[in-house]
Amino acid sequence: MTRIEHLTESGLLERITPGLAQGSDVELGPGDDAAVVRLASPRLVITTDTLTEGHDFLLSATRPEWIGRKAAVQNLADVAAMGARPQAVVVSVSAPRETPAELLEGISRGLAERCAREGVSVVGGDLGAADSLSITVTAVGALPEGQAPVRRDGARPDQVLALGSPLIGRSAAGLALVLAGEGEALAGDRGTDGDDGDDGVRSPDVTPAALVAWHDAPDPEISLGWTACPGRARAMLDVSDGLARDGGRIARASGVVLDLDRAVLAADADALAPAADLLTEPADPWQWVLGGGEEHALLATFEEGEIPAGFRRIGLVRAPSPGEEPGVVLDGTVLADLGFDHFG
Amino acid sequence: MTRIEHLTESGLLERITPGLAQGSDVELGPGDDAAVVRLASPRLVITTDTLTEGHDFLLSATRPEWIGRKAAVQNLADVAAMGARPQAVVVSVSAPRETPAELLEGISRGLAERCAREGVSVVGGDLGAADSLSITVTAVGALPEGQAPVRRDGARPDQVLALGSPLIGRSAAGLALVLAGEGEALAGDRGTDGDDGDDGVRSPDVTPAALVAWHDAPDPEISLGWTACPGRARAMLDVSDGLARDGGRIARASGVVLDLDRAVLAADADALAPAADLLTEPADPWQWVLGGGEEHALLATFEEGEIPAGFRRIGLVRAPSPGEEPGVVLDGTVLADLGFDHFG
Repeated sequence: MTRIEHLTESGLLERITPGLAQGSDVELGPGDDAAVVRLASPRLVITTDTLTEGHDFLLSATRPEWIGRKAAVQNLADVAAMGARPQAVVVSVSAPRETPAELLEGISRGLAERCAREGVSVVGGDLGAADSLSITVTAVGALPEGQAPVRRDGARPDQVLALGSPLIGRSAAGLALVLAGEGEALAGDRGTDGDDGDDGVRSPDVTPAALVAWHDAPDPEISLGWTACPGRARAMLDVSDGLARDGGRIARASGVVLDLDRAVLAADADALAPAADLLTEPADPWQWVLGGGEEHALLATFEEGEIPAGFRRIGLVRAPSPGEEPGVVLDGTVLADLGFDHFG
Repeated sequence: MTRIEHLTESGLLERITPGLAQGSDVELGPGDDAAVVRLASPRLVITTDTLTEGHDFLLSATRPEWIGRKAAVQNLADVAAMGARPQAVVVSVSAPRETPAELLEGISRGLAERCAREGVSVVGGDLGAADSLSITVTAVGALPEGQAPVRRDGARPDQVLALGSPLIGRSAAGLALVLAGEGEALAGDRGTDGDDGDDGVRSPDVTPAALVAWHDAPDPEISLGWTACPGRARAMLDVSDGLARDGGRIARASGVVLDLDRAVLAADADALAPAADLLTEPADPWQWVLGGGEEHALLATFEEGEIPAGFRRIGLVRAPSPGEEPGVVLDGTVLADLGFDHFG
């Protein structure tokens, strides 16, 4: 183990940057004052997000590679949620001087591998000293000329609400397992990626190990954002803070009500019920389904009949009734009233 | 005073984002998953950097607005150092829950104002919880088609070395004053921007208050990077870690020796001597001139006779003598041997 205080900054970067493969769109990668990337169009899409130790992850309950993957996914999903293909990221890492170099190498490897899967290059970064570890990723992509960004305010009555994931709530379920003390034991096993069912559709793995892994490094199909959604999605975001809160953002921005389909989401709750049963403190899997964040699956509205493959219908868009506020409802009850959209 | 723990994230953003003016190149500003900016060309230039409380600034010895300005300058300078005009930044702020909202508003205001001076928009951001305050800015710009980025490896023998600042070492001098306990008393007064001398050239203000302010919010002429340097600068970076270390980067990347002109830089040391005399611990202003970082002035090489206005000649580029390593020398002595390029 080599602590970073015993390496020069350039010495550490020399260990990390050779692992960062650069795409053919990268004119100038890491090592100068800034990187140069040829975007697919001049219409830049840009977003940034930070993961902080003790707040967004626990070093004791995750792996360095997963921190890197999570940092990648939460940013790439934001670009995808505009309907754009991400092309590059830059990363700023702040770390205590006694941090093992291997930890930063692992984070970097996870980041770069998850990015590479989407054809995204890690083109630059910064490394500085801090009292605790944090990772800020900025992701960029481009929108083709003539293609409008998919905003949050495009939901209209009679559209359908759809989710780009076969199961929601896994991240919250995994967190509950970690907090219950199951995390450390389980973090060593990633589990399988899922089983092929009788219908040939791969169903998500809901073993405890897989749920903890999903929490540590959620892995939704973000490429749907730029492959399936341009020209079809009317409103879109990725689920960062839970169906209720993120749905509420679409609802308020668009002035509509999102009416969730209990029968559909009950299947998600049922799938997570065995995990809830493992906990000594009783847990309601509906809380995970409706309130669980850090999924980063795409949530979008489409015209009836236009839902692309990879999305499943989970509700309807309707106009607010007289006196009703825009929001998310289930069986006629506003989810905010169930405690699902508070700041926390 | 309102602590941010008593505001929702959206409530806090509602206080901040109205102050962020958006340029006409911004298609979609803050508030969605990502921002959309029409770049001047598809050749994106991108860089990122973090300021962390206790490591890069002391809340007790600076002002919120200056933290924002410094975060802006250090990133805009990196884009400028490629010869590109910056167009937009995104910012990720991590802060303890008890942080006053006014502190974050001040940082945001300083960031936005400094950006606006260069025609740069703050187009998006992220706010999260952490144990200490940190600000990560990512700056983007674009290179016109056909214009090569100005890298660090283009210095060649017989070029001249030039600095885009009338005085170097102010940031280090200001830091010395702060560390000597002069900072808190002085941080209240920004000082003047400098006096017009007899020759009509504005000479830098070297009062203690001005030096502390320069340390807290260095304000070099970064626009030289995109106005004066394209097609002329052969190698360029901004001085983040001091003339010796940053010069060494150009020297090693280019395989040359940068031979500093003592007579020129002596004027800088002389200008800072009165500040050194204020300290009870003896200080050598040459240390500030050669070793002082966080200046963010542009350091570039040009062909003889091509130094643009705003730059001044501070040395020569030459080939290494037989057996000599690339590096920075003063009066024939390698600066590394004087202790000016260690990691710290």
